[in-house]
Amino acid sequence: MDPAASHLLGELIQSRFVASLATLHEGLPYASMIPYATWQDAAGERLLLVTHVSRLSAHTRDMLESPRVCLLITAPDATGDAEPVPPQALPRVSIPAVAEFIDREHPDHGTLARAYLEKFPSAADWFQLGDFSIVTFTPAGSARFVAGFARAMTVSAAQLQAAVSIAGHG
Amino acid sequence: MDPAASHLLGELIQSRFVASLATLHEGLPYASMIPYATWQDAAGERLLLVTHVSRLSAHTRDMLESPRVCLLITAPDATGDAEPVPPQALPRVSIPAVAEFIDREHPDHGTLARAYLEKFPSAADWFQLGDFSIVTFTPAGSARFVAGFARAMTVSAAQLQAAVSIAGHG
Repeated sequence: MDPAASHLLGELIQSRFVASLATLHEGLPYASMIPYATWQDAAGERLLLVTHVSRLSAHTRDMLESPRVCLLITAPDATGDAEPVPPQALPRVSIPAVAEFIDREHPDHGTLARAYLEKFPSAADWFQLGDFSIVTFTPAGSARFVAGFARAMTVSAAQLQAAVSIAGHG
Repeated sequence: MDPAASHLLGELIQSRFVASLATLHEGLPYASMIPYATWQDAAGERLLLVTHVSRLSAHTRDMLESPRVCLLITAPDATGDAEPVPPQALPRVSIPAVAEFIDREHPDHGTLARAYLEKFPSAADWFQLGDFSIVTFTPAGSARFVAGFARAMTVSAAQLQAAVSIAGHG
């Protein structure tokens, strides 16, 4: 992946607040929305996407039953009455991932909670509620990044990690 | 569903240009992006979402193998460095649906193509390409509409139809 595409990918993932989440729901694909933050270890060797979900949500039950999911992060499109840039040109990335529930006793709970709350300070109250849980997404296999019109590329977990790391320190 | 929620739902579906599409990909959920338009019959009894996809796309192959999908349409969130409205409050709707490929000989091909091109005039060139196809999505079962914070509701196909119909004539 060339540096310009890597930069665009890192910025896309770091700048957005919500992702679409595809889960397996009673055997069929289901699409819902989640807020997400990113977390990386100090060595820059591990990248997680982090969310905070209610145990009552349908997608939470889906992930408990089947942790293989996919996230889609999309650049904002223009709003209004006119057609925006052709939507095929909108940058977006599909990230297959494995969901893991992180309970309060997990050694990484504190650092993951801080990463999430840094992006979503208004969520602090919800951390007091017993039925909410942190869920991490570990990228699994290749992601698919569309950088613009006719600029689709396959992205390894290492390339994804590097793109987010550079954007985070840029 | 109260009239205010119905109005918000119809506006959401009519005003957006892209949806997230959850498909079954080699047995696992996958999330990608599609442009979409809406189409209704003259009697207002039938609602379809309409897209135009390349036969080369992964989600096209997914839909050919397994036509049960789910669309997610999300209101735009604020962009920038600050947390937007709590993302849990972002209006969005998850619509389970059945995908159907509409070839050029199909009696509805012309009217569906017009509905799509009315929203996406720049796509006209792609209708000349043999490897692109119209795909319709017929809502199947209940949709899930989140109108705002703690305002989630189940929406029948008839309620979905009515909400889009009213917004289209508003």
